[in-house]
Amino acid sequence: MTVTAITLADLAERLGVELAGDPQCVITGLAPLASAKAGQLSFLDNPRYRQQLSHTNASAVILRREELPHCPSNALISNNPYLSYAQLTAWFATAPQAEPGVHPTVVCGTADIAASASIGAHCVIGNHVRIAEGVVIQAGCVIGDNCVIGANSHLYSQVTLYHDVVLGEGVIIHSGAVLGSDGFGFAKTADGWQKIVQLGGVRIGNAVEIGANTTIDRGALDNTVIEDQVKLDNQIQIGHNVHIGRGTAIAGCVGIAGSTRIGQYCLIAGGAGIGGHLTIADYVVITGMAMVTKSITQAGSYSSGTGLQESQEWRKSAARFHQLNQLAHRIQQLEAKVQQLSQQQNA
Amino acid sequence: MTVTAITLADLAERLGVELAGDPQCVITGLAPLASAKAGQLSFLDNPRYRQQLSHTNASAVILRREELPHCPSNALISNNPYLSYAQLTAWFATAPQAEPGVHPTVVCGTADIAASASIGAHCVIGNHVRIAEGVVIQAGCVIGDNCVIGANSHLYSQVTLYHDVVLGEGVIIHSGAVLGSDGFGFAKTADGWQKIVQLGGVRIGNAVEIGANTTIDRGALDNTVIEDQVKLDNQIQIGHNVHIGRGTAIAGCVGIAGSTRIGQYCLIAGGAGIGGHLTIADYVVITGMAMVTKSITQAGSYSSGTGLQESQEWRKSAARFHQLNQLAHRIQQLEAKVQQLSQQQNA
Amino acid sequence: MTVTAITLADLAERLGVELAGDPQCVITGLAPLASAKAGQLSFLDNPRYRQQLSHTNASAVILRREELPHCPSNALISNNPYLSYAQLTAWFATAPQAEPGVHPTVVCGTADIAASASIGAHCVIGNHVRIAEGVVIQAGCVIGDNCVIGANSHLYSQVTLYHDVVLGEGVIIHSGAVLGSDGFGFAKTADGWQKIVQLGGVRIGNAVEIGANTTIDRGALDNTVIEDQVKLDNQIQIGHNVHIGRGTAIAGCVGIAGSTRIGQYCLIAGGAGIGGHLTIADYVVITGMAMVTKSITQAGSYSSGTGLQESQEWRKSAARFHQLNQLAHRIQQLEAKVQQLSQQQNA
Repeated sequence: MTVTAITLADLAERLGVELAGDPQCVITGLAPLASAKAGQLSFLDNPRYRQQLSHTNASAVILRREELPHCPSNALISNNPYLSYAQLTAWFATAPQAEPGVHPTVVCGTADIAASASIGAHCVIGNHVRIAEGVVIQAGCVIGDNCVIGANSHLYSQVTLYHDVVLGEGVIIHSGAVLGSDGFGFAKTADGWQKIVQLGGVRIGNAVEIGANTTIDRGALDNTVIEDQVKLDNQIQIGHNVHIGRGTAIAGCVGIAGSTRIGQYCLIAGGAGIGGHLTIADYVVITGMAMVTKSITQAGSYSSGTGLQESQEWRKSAARFHQLNQLAHRIQQLEAKVQQLSQQQNA
Repeated sequence: MTVTAITLADLAERLGVELAGDPQCVITGLAPLASAKAGQLSFLDNPRYRQQLSHTNASAVILRREELPHCPSNALISNNPYLSYAQLTAWFATAPQAEPGVHPTVVCGTADIAASASIGAHCVIGNHVRIAEGVVIQAGCVIGDNCVIGANSHLYSQVTLYHDVVLGEGVIIHSGAVLGSDGFGFAKTADGWQKIVQLGGVRIGNAVEIGANTTIDRGALDNTVIEDQVKLDNQIQIGHNVHIGRGTAIAGCVGIAGSTRIGQYCLIAGGAGIGGHLTIADYVVITGMAMVTKSITQAGSYSSGTGLQESQEWRKSAARFHQLNQLAHRIQQLEAKVQQLSQQQNA
Repeated sequence: MTVTAITLADLAERLGVELAGDPQCVITGLAPLASAKAGQLSFLDNPRYRQQLSHTNASAVILRREELPHCPSNALISNNPYLSYAQLTAWFATAPQAEPGVHPTVVCGTADIAASASIGAHCVIGNHVRIAEGVVIQAGCVIGDNCVIGANSHLYSQVTLYHDVVLGEGVIIHSGAVLGSDGFGFAKTADGWQKIVQLGGVRIGNAVEIGANTTIDRGALDNTVIEDQVKLDNQIQIGHNVHIGRGTAIAGCVGIAGSTRIGQYCLIAGGAGIGGHLTIADYVVITGMAMVTKSITQAGSYSSGTGLQESQEWRKSAARFHQLNQLAHRIQQLEAKVQQLSQQQNA
């Protein structure tokens, strides 16, 4: 369902939330508190934006009951305003809808394509491919042999699936993403490298989202596996045979080296790097740009790196970092000497 | 204008600089001081390459007046040799020129394409797209509905614009770049994530350059905005609702998380990471691989990280880093004890 | 050669290794020790997986002679089991084979394409391009003017080569990789930036592999050069005029800034960043996410960064890092005072 105008009463009913104010108020769009105009609906989730609530020009605001006294407009009272807002966004979607059917410019092997699927211009589909009902594949995608694309999945333009990549249902893949490229595997020879041909595939669960220009390598022998509800941002690199557990969310520019196993419902912030052959427990949080070189066996939040300083000050800190072990030894020597002095004095 | 041979006199006149030497000397190309041959023009900007000046085989060198005595060849005297060289490069460009017109393999919606624009093979153009005079879109690009591409912009092959992406004039976008992909927004549910449909667009100013495989997400509700003269290198990730001020230059592999606002004329070096919802002042310099987790309110240079060490030494420093707080406490205790000892001794 | 079933005797002969057990045992595939089933061949290289050897269901295992007593199955005895396994993988490859010939949807300039080459659907090939025998270019690639692609090279789908990119023989390039995009070069002007048109090209040696979505910029005046046997993983950024020596292997997400020269047989781990205009000696190892801001003149292993801590503990370490120089001064002062006290006491 996409709407261009809807009454607040309708919205409250669909969201299953309580309405405070004018049920006939017509909502024509969504906007942040600060920039919302008449006719628009906004939301307050993070209390640090409470200031903006009292000055908003929104016609209605989704908020928690305790914020109601500060609200100058109509309100929708939700236990989870952010989730209610998330649900709303789908109804106001403005993205063009794809028409079912295979564009005449598509080059297609022996694929089995459901009637309701939409395949955009200049796509190339391999042999033995199965594309389920409701799938949208936008222009310029290349789908290798033996791929399976589950119902209602959506591939934006210029996605590449190598052969033997299997997607679950409701998977979203953004432009430029590459799934099934070779893992980085070579054996050293006398004067170079012998390629290890990558014989595994890629298995993506249901409701997985994969960001623009993210890459997921195929397995060396077994598959690379991404479980249901995993959310991957842009420019992520997933090495061969990585296994990511259900519901884990990973922000942009993260790199995960081969054969690492990440648990369920982890949160990995942008730019983090995770070494190969590690195991990360469930519910682990990794903060931005952290470097993970050992397995993590306990849920919790983990970090590395140094905070930002003015460059001139930072150069001093960085120079001292190189002396840290020596500084620690000097502290130890001082402690010994001071104890000795103290004993002599008290003797 | 592209030249294959030009006299030094002509070059001096076009650049508006002074000539020292033979005005009839014919220049057929550009080269660095060290590898230049007869007929080639070189430049000296960074004084650390002065050594190379005296041995160059270039037929002429662009340089500052004070370097003239060391120059064994003809010279063009410029107050800003690097800028003069930059201007020159355009005249010696060797890249193939695109022919105006729409290639017959292009799949095109209801687009309004100027007569002088060039659309390469296998491009896919959506509905309600406006493409201005002098635009070049090379092979295999996909342009979504409602996009606007300003005059003389140049999209190299395989660029993807989602719907509602607006480019100013003279914008250059390199291959594999993706503009308008969904921002990374999800609301937590009991057992997974509810997608927040991204309703904003992308607005790119005039004379912006965007590197290969760089990704710029569309806004959640408002737009993601890149102002005029911003220069973005390859493999950069720009989150939703980021705003980058005029003239800021960002090197490769930088990641900028959502809703962060970066000022004008900032310089952000390669691999830096900038957290979400931050504000960075004008004229800020961020050094390579720095991690920015707080807003920066003052112009200046900022850094984080540690310098490179031999791995064996580094492991000791890194181990001591974990003990830093404890080491600081031990210093504090030592200071107290030493003061006590000193007082007792002097008592 | 691709096999679906082969006797152990045949394998031993082809690999040039010794067989222990049943020469008639038929091998139908490869698998890791832990998941291998009857009919499959596995290998033991890293002694930490020795535990898995005694429980494997593989029909045969490639291993070193000293592991033979622990092997419950047939064995192939190799001095280098990992290399033997690497050689084997090619024989069991399952990737679809490309048919020679140019697909009718290809748009092609004045290219010289060998009869045995295979050009996939919707590729676009420029003018004056030379494509040698045995080359495979998969669907949706764009090859610029004057490119040369050496014998038996393989470009996966959606690779982009700008003009004047020259590949050696046996080069493999994965999807989304971009070679020859403009280096990041601008001269500062009063209110913005003057583009430095990039006039160099890209030269790739023999047996180079380039990962998915990796970008290699063209040179400013000279070429960017990647020597024979260099192996590049996914999402790597190589700046203009970088030179990488023979046999160097670089893992995912590494960034190398312009004009840096890297020696032969270096190993650079994932996420490392290397500054511009540096020289890195042969046989240098850079560990994961290390930041290299100075030239490295000696072979050896180099690191930077801090190890992972629980975030709460890390915040204390990071705060103390900012005070490091001051802490070092306090240690110095303590040392002076303690010496003074010691002298007074002994006086």
